[in-house]
Amino acid sequence: MQYFFSNDKTNDKIVLPREESKHCVLVLRYKIGDIIYVANGKGTEFTCEIIDTKNSLVELKVVDKKEKVGKVDYYIHIVIAPTKSNHRFEWFIEKAVEIGVDEISFIECSNSERKKINIDRVNKIALTAMKQSLKTYLPKINNIDKFSNVISKTTQQNKYIGYLGDCSTEFLSHLAPQQSSYCLFIGPEGDFTNEEIETAVNYGFNSVLLSKSRLRTETAGVMGCMILNGTNHE
Amino acid sequence: MQYFFSNDKTNDKIVLPREESKHCVLVLRYKIGDIIYVANGKGTEFTCEIIDTKNSLVELKVVDKKEKVGKVDYYIHIVIAPTKSNHRFEWFIEKAVEIGVDEISFIECSNSERKKINIDRVNKIALTAMKQSLKTYLPKINNIDKFSNVISKTTQQNKYIGYLGDCSTEFLSHLAPQQSSYCLFIGPEGDFTNEEIETAVNYGFNSVLLSKSRLRTETAGVMGCMILNGTNHE
Repeated sequence: MQYFFSNDKTNDKIVLPREESKHCVLVLRYKIGDIIYVANGKGTEFTCEIIDTKNSLVELKVVDKKEKVGKVDYYIHIVIAPTKSNHRFEWFIEKAVEIGVDEISFIECSNSERKKINIDRVNKIALTAMKQSLKTYLPKINNIDKFSNVISKTTQQNKYIGYLGDCSTEFLSHLAPQQSSYCLFIGPEGDFTNEEIETAVNYGFNSVLLSKSRLRTETAGVMGCMILNGTNHE
Repeated sequence: MQYFFSNDKTNDKIVLPREESKHCVLVLRYKIGDIIYVANGKGTEFTCEIIDTKNSLVELKVVDKKEKVGKVDYYIHIVIAPTKSNHRFEWFIEKAVEIGVDEISFIECSNSERKKINIDRVNKIALTAMKQSLKTYLPKINNIDKFSNVISKTTQQNKYIGYLGDCSTEFLSHLAPQQSSYCLFIGPEGDFTNEEIETAVNYGFNSVLLSKSRLRTETAGVMGCMILNGTNHE
């Protein structure tokens, strides 16, 4: 089984975006009459019949649909400072989506080495990971913003901040309750400053340990996703 | 703080291997009289003074040592089929070491796409990850061998096998006891065959779920390390 992505649906017709169409027809050699599965990034899986492939655009007729596929009763928001290495940063996106995340935000911190991201590329990686891991929900991805702006807008019920300093004594895995909403801040390679940590505490954040090991930024982000999903394994 | 690696110690003298020596002197510009830290891969951290750097070989005098640094009271053995992509496979090594693993074995399964690995390169990645995450123990790494050979030699107390088929109903995180020894088998991209799973069950393995999500091979390996370390967070 394999997912294609499209959010271009009118009545019972779906059109695949150009790249998805090409992949479907030119790489995977699907033909008119074949059945494929489409995820819309919002929880719905459509079973579709290919009815046209002209101009390298695949047109589909919906023959069945399932809603809220894989819906969970918790919400994970990871807020992370992008790493200097694009490669490590993109790896984080892929793995977070694969393991399960609802929202990803990027922050510019005092010690950030990277202050810009290519949001189109990030969205593309997230989409590929969504399809690969047979998920129907595409996480919300927010462009990079200043630490202070992001932290003041955090709305999740449980707020955590992970950093390398040794003030934290509680493991995230022990603190997080089940079936709730979580926001986890992960700092840059140079770590959060004391001022940033203080700001977070003033906003009701708990400082947490993710592991006994010293983790790289991108590993900490993935570890956070694993722990918060794990908390909700029944 | 930063670790160098050496296992070349005679009395209170340590010599850094050639590459480590170069990195120390040519890249990081350490000089005679400077203090550096050396991990021997067997749990000992040496505080050393640089006493000579001729011929691009760094000679050190041990001024202090700590043994069993970061020693844990559990043992994690991950047995994994290498992925087709070198890149994904090497990522697994790095992250497993960073998060914490005691032994890694590679298996050739019926559905394996990769039947050879470059063991020198694997050891090098493990060593770099060990230093980066300030660990003093280097995991034992075994060269690739057939599934049947590896499974018959497994000695850990708790044996688990993870795969994509839906027979498993228990999460690894619920099954694994604290302070024990664990062996976790992770299959190739084409999954274990029914025969391999049956063999594992006959050898006393429990089939387990690592996540509610469909994970790639390399993600499953890392997830296993995270869960088994997490089990032992006090």
